[in-house]
Amino acid sequence: MSSFVTSCVFCAIAAGDASAHIVAESDQAIAFLDARPVFPGHTLVIPRDHYETLADLPVAQLASYFGFVQKIAVAVESGMSADGTFVAINNKISQSVPHLHTHVVPRRRKDGLRGFFWPRTKYATEIAAEACADSIRAAFAAATRVTAS
Amino acid sequence: MSSFVTSCVFCAIAAGDASAHIVAESDQAIAFLDARPVFPGHTLVIPRDHYETLADLPVAQLASYFGFVQKIAVAVESGMSADGTFVAINNKISQSVPHLHTHVVPRRRKDGLRGFFWPRTKYATEIAAEACADSIRAAFAAATRVTAS
Repeated sequence: MSSFVTSCVFCAIAAGDASAHIVAESDQAIAFLDARPVFPGHTLVIPRDHYETLADLPVAQLASYFGFVQKIAVAVESGMSADGTFVAINNKISQSVPHLHTHVVPRRRKDGLRGFFWPRTKYATEIAAEACADSIRAAFAAATRVTAS
Repeated sequence: MSSFVTSCVFCAIAAGDASAHIVAESDQAIAFLDARPVFPGHTLVIPRDHYETLADLPVAQLASYFGFVQKIAVAVESGMSADGTFVAINNKISQSVPHLHTHVVPRRRKDGLRGFFWPRTKYATEIAAEACADSIRAAFAAATRVTAS
């Protein structure tokens, strides 16, 4: 584990061993500019400790981590004189660095992003939709049982 | 306010006055299928109370709301036999319903989504990047002062 963590570029930024344009820090998290922004001011928020995905973030860190993300979203919108923000986490697929990071991207009207949410599709039938809902319900129930045990 | 809340389709779903394929509920949040999914199983997580954006979510609800989002992300990935998830919030821009909602979209390798995170750009100079970081730092400091007062 420790050699992996040592080779993680986000762990290196958190430790001060790799350079980044840091915009804010808290006890458990740190926010810095994405070096390849979608738009200028695109910021990444990471927990200082190495957790791979959202699922791996300890419950005890949820409030502090997302409270920090919330403040960064306000600061990115205000600081970049934007009209809104896009706040997103890629878990595993499209996740370039396997250390949990939340993207906070300033958005403006008519900025040209259609993004992830297009094109949209439709369920062929209500039965098809209900079958998907059933699968997720069962998985939620199973995961909750594991957590509670 | 109350007439606006009454006309909010997500408030209506939370109240049981509008139909939706609900996949899970907690005391403060509810998860249901997006009727126009990017991929089948695309789920929305909303707080039961009407908050417009992430910035409006009370600090006291952060842990329970994002704890529920975390569980839904696990359930969507597992229940849809996916390889990962995309978890995202649009604040104001591209936000179709002005009631905070987190998208949880199942992702698969080679599913064709390039999404929001492409194309990427570069800062022309390190000075240009630092100027952006400075603006966000100042906004973060200002917002934190307001919160603390």
